[in-house]
Amino acid sequence: MTGRILRMSTLFVRTLRDDPNDAEVPSHRLLVRAGYIRRNAPGIYTWLPLGLRVLRRIENIIREEMDDMGAQELSFPALLPKEPYEATNRWTEYGPNIFRLQDRKGADYLLGPTHEEMFTLVVKDLYSSYKDLPLSIYQIQTKYRDEARPRAGLLRGREFVMKDSYSFDVTDAGLEESYQKHRDAYIRIFDRLGFEYVIVKATSGAMGGSASEEFLAKAEVGEDTYVRCTHCDYAANVEAVAVRAPAAVSTASDNWGDAPAAHAEDTPDTPTIDSLVDHLNEAYPRDDRPWAAGDTLKNVLVVLKHPDGTREPLAIGVPGDREVDQKRLEGQLEPIEVEAMDEAELAKHPALVKGYIGPEVLGEESKSGIRFLVDPRIAEGTRWVTGANVPGSHVIDMVVGRDFTPDGTIEAADVRDGDACPNCDEGTLESARGVEMGHIFQLGRKYAEALGLQVLDENGKLVTVTMGSYGIGPSRAVAAIAEGTLDEIGLCWPRNVAPADVHVVAAGKDEAIAAAAEQLAQDLKAAGLEVLLDDRTGKVSPGVKFKDAELIGVPTIVTVGRGLADGNVEVRDRASGEREDVAVGAAVARITDIVRS
Amino acid sequence: MTGRILRMSTLFVRTLRDDPNDAEVPSHRLLVRAGYIRRNAPGIYTWLPLGLRVLRRIENIIREEMDDMGAQELSFPALLPKEPYEATNRWTEYGPNIFRLQDRKGADYLLGPTHEEMFTLVVKDLYSSYKDLPLSIYQIQTKYRDEARPRAGLLRGREFVMKDSYSFDVTDAGLEESYQKHRDAYIRIFDRLGFEYVIVKATSGAMGGSASEEFLAKAEVGEDTYVRCTHCDYAANVEAVAVRAPAAVSTASDNWGDAPAAHAEDTPDTPTIDSLVDHLNEAYPRDDRPWAAGDTLKNVLVVLKHPDGTREPLAIGVPGDREVDQKRLEGQLEPIEVEAMDEAELAKHPALVKGYIGPEVLGEESKSGIRFLVDPRIAEGTRWVTGANVPGSHVIDMVVGRDFTPDGTIEAADVRDGDACPNCDEGTLESARGVEMGHIFQLGRKYAEALGLQVLDENGKLVTVTMGSYGIGPSRAVAAIAEGTLDEIGLCWPRNVAPADVHVVAAGKDEAIAAAAEQLAQDLKAAGLEVLLDDRTGKVSPGVKFKDAELIGVPTIVTVGRGLADGNVEVRDRASGEREDVAVGAAVARITDIVRS
Repeated sequence: MTGRILRMSTLFVRTLRDDPNDAEVPSHRLLVRAGYIRRNAPGIYTWLPLGLRVLRRIENIIREEMDDMGAQELSFPALLPKEPYEATNRWTEYGPNIFRLQDRKGADYLLGPTHEEMFTLVVKDLYSSYKDLPLSIYQIQTKYRDEARPRAGLLRGREFVMKDSYSFDVTDAGLEESYQKHRDAYIRIFDRLGFEYVIVKATSGAMGGSASEEFLAKAEVGEDTYVRCTHCDYAANVEAVAVRAPAAVSTASDNWGDAPAAHAEDTPDTPTIDSLVDHLNEAYPRDDRPWAAGDTLKNVLVVLKHPDGTREPLAIGVPGDREVDQKRLEGQLEPIEVEAMDEAELAKHPALVKGYIGPEVLGEESKSGIRFLVDPRIAEGTRWVTGANVPGSHVIDMVVGRDFTPDGTIEAADVRDGDACPNCDEGTLESARGVEMGHIFQLGRKYAEALGLQVLDENGKLVTVTMGSYGIGPSRAVAAIAEGTLDEIGLCWPRNVAPADVHVVAAGKDEAIAAAAEQLAQDLKAAGLEVLLDDRTGKVSPGVKFKDAELIGVPTIVTVGRGLADGNVEVRDRASGEREDVAVGAAVARITDIVRS
Repeated sequence: MTGRILRMSTLFVRTLRDDPNDAEVPSHRLLVRAGYIRRNAPGIYTWLPLGLRVLRRIENIIREEMDDMGAQELSFPALLPKEPYEATNRWTEYGPNIFRLQDRKGADYLLGPTHEEMFTLVVKDLYSSYKDLPLSIYQIQTKYRDEARPRAGLLRGREFVMKDSYSFDVTDAGLEESYQKHRDAYIRIFDRLGFEYVIVKATSGAMGGSASEEFLAKAEVGEDTYVRCTHCDYAANVEAVAVRAPAAVSTASDNWGDAPAAHAEDTPDTPTIDSLVDHLNEAYPRDDRPWAAGDTLKNVLVVLKHPDGTREPLAIGVPGDREVDQKRLEGQLEPIEVEAMDEAELAKHPALVKGYIGPEVLGEESKSGIRFLVDPRIAEGTRWVTGANVPGSHVIDMVVGRDFTPDGTIEAADVRDGDACPNCDEGTLESARGVEMGHIFQLGRKYAEALGLQVLDENGKLVTVTMGSYGIGPSRAVAAIAEGTLDEIGLCWPRNVAPADVHVVAAGKDEAIAAAAEQLAQDLKAAGLEVLLDDRTGKVSPGVKFKDAELIGVPTIVTVGRGLADGNVEVRDRASGEREDVAVGAAVARITDIVRS
């Protein structure tokens, strides 16, 4: 390891006293104030020297672990021709979320948001036999997405750095093995990065595929909500939670009890669940227990916006005590976007009576023809109160499978703290927020099929390759690590990603102080450390230097100042604030010890 | 230095027997055949593992030398908002040569072809005092140009890697010093890259600015032509050659002799210089020497295409024995493009008589109003035969400054081997071709003025900063180095940029051979070398392995084969072909010695 001295007197950095106007989250505010990044346009940033050093250290940790697991690095262009993305339909599916452009001859290009197509095609180009596999290849490269709402600085940028890798196997068992190898490498990477993370089950979004996990940084500012079980090790992105639903009970079977026939009842002025429940308890009280929102079936109408621009109405049935969670719904439907159905659109379906919509008029075979999907809790054999498709009327004792049959189920109801764990009988779910830092999943044969990636197997037969996909965002990691470690006085980097190992502050105008600080920096450099030396003179007071050191957040701060008269320097741990006086002669050994520990 | 083993059995590479269809130059052919790169679209390439290793080694050499000279690395986005480029007018000037796009909100962006604006603005953002300067900052980053004719593989790509740095100084003397420091660093970089290059005077193209030099790789396939003096150290890109012209002699001065008055003469059917000279020698023979093409003044009409789309006619006067060199002409006029004036356009100017155009109808003050620029040889006091603007008639004894005055001069005439050196009295010029690998120049205050980059000087006054601009293309360097070093059997890398230090070939099916090759590779790795080990088994014959090793071009090839029976391996220098047998026990020491020498 080669030492180095960065001098605050010449380093291309300026710290700011004030928060930038456009900073939404603490990490963004501090990364700008401490001179790590600058914004050029929404979601587009310049990396100043300090920021670039952190980014490169993160990239290098990723690169080392990828190389160690046997993955090979290559690099694709960011400017990509349309054709491969047309072959997989993603040219259309991405809708407005990618940057498109034409060259001077009018040919269509995109700025790559992700490179499945390119990885698939390069393997198709080079390889032809099962003997060539398994293969894992990766790149660390700039990617582009035209986000509708770039936010939170580097956390959701429009130009960002990604490590994306892909595994190629002949068999499902091979894919499972490649997936596990990547998962292990990711755990080593995230452990080395040095911040709190959690691995959760995930949906695979627009990518297709099956098994899928995310590595989330724990962060209040995160866009992702995940849940963990209070009892078992279940953890999942809330989008991926599969509700614990009652077993279906066939209404044709002997098990089925004697539920009364469905009966429509007058329920005047009950367009909301609350008003309906109140009315039921007043007008139709039950013996065993009062009516509750969970006894009612709420049918929510939305409009699906397909990537090709077509719109499709959809009805979603959820228990009356649940809401439709738009992110969970969109998580199931990606790349389709969802919006609420407005009055004008509702009016186009005369069968639908607002506030009193019931299953009879829903479903592909029904009068409205609107597809009708229900929460898994609306299982066969369950009994509900629901709209009668007449103003001021509801049907009681409506039984699924006897009185109506939905077109299917969908995980769209909101997940709440205290919900039963889907994985064990004892626990309940607790939610928290996080930032998606990595995503690994078994992509399967979707891209290989679309692009014709086949190899000859042992018997000389062509078989389609199965793929895994594995991503980490180094630029997002800079912000997520900053966010997860900062405190009220500034950034506070984990050792492995800090822009320097130690920050030496020459505190005082005394020439002896400057000389001693310089000598210490040289000695630390010779010991192989990267030193940020605050050697500024002139009007820069010790107080300003300390504030800057706290803001910049190098993990160890060494002050060469008044203590020098007694032969000491002060070594301070940035995170804990703990200080110790160390004799000048012992300083290099002590600091090296701290840095290497 | 950490050792490493790359195994041909698993390396993501496939060599090709046949040349790719679209490869125009040897380096491109071999880089594709040897599995270094793949083409995705015109001028857009994927870096396979071997290619990426060469690219990264070049980048690291550049990075080390830039850091060593005190330049600081940062990184700008490639996707840039339009506004800064509008402020300098380059949004327009670049015309169709940049990629433009709009985001989902309709805001205009470009893919950065070069980052002067961004560098200028970031310094303006952070710095405010002369005390902050000098400063040199750089990035190594992907750039984009929508070339009209992407060609020769990586030599002229549309997506490519650039190291661009900028210096910022208060004074011209400071700029000169920063320029020299960069020049010295560039010399160290190019020396380390290990191939033949030449430093030549250059024009500064669209960049503006004054002093300017290029680092050219000597290469027949290069797009640049440069000249060197046979006597002195003058070297210049042909675009930058300043013609050695006669001193102007005022026709009003006493020095001026008694040239006869200009006289129009019949010269029927002499629309070409050759036919005119023949006719002159026949009809108007001279006493002292025969008429030659160099006695005539040829007026060439072209159309300038300004970046904003407007077209402007221009007349260029050159001696009749010279041609207008379009590249030299465009070099003077960038970003304006030039095309020949066709018949239709010529017809719009009735004063112009094709084949007999003379100075009388040229010039901004003349009947045609067409701007008239002449080669510096058409100096004041020189005498010419030129068109009389009447079919079949020329004027003899037309004297510059007496009979006509051009609007100015321009360096547009072709430069030829044997032309007098502009720098010394003895030498003549010799031309050769090269690839532009680096370009350094004193940009001056153009961008600082356009974007308002000022700092306070020692007296508290705002002064405009002066800048230098310094570029190297690492991706182009891969191709240029390949081109400059390859031979008839394959690539042949200089040591410092090769994808590995040594290529160990296990030649034979014997298990002892495989084991010995593996052990040697492990020992070389332990000694810190990067080893490419051809450990392929099965149908891959020693002949195939040798051919691949020659094609891939690692500088030292070690064969573990038949010699092993005698306790030897064969060490071969890829470039010279020299071979030596080395005892197995001495191999690591010998090879390490060769690699480190």
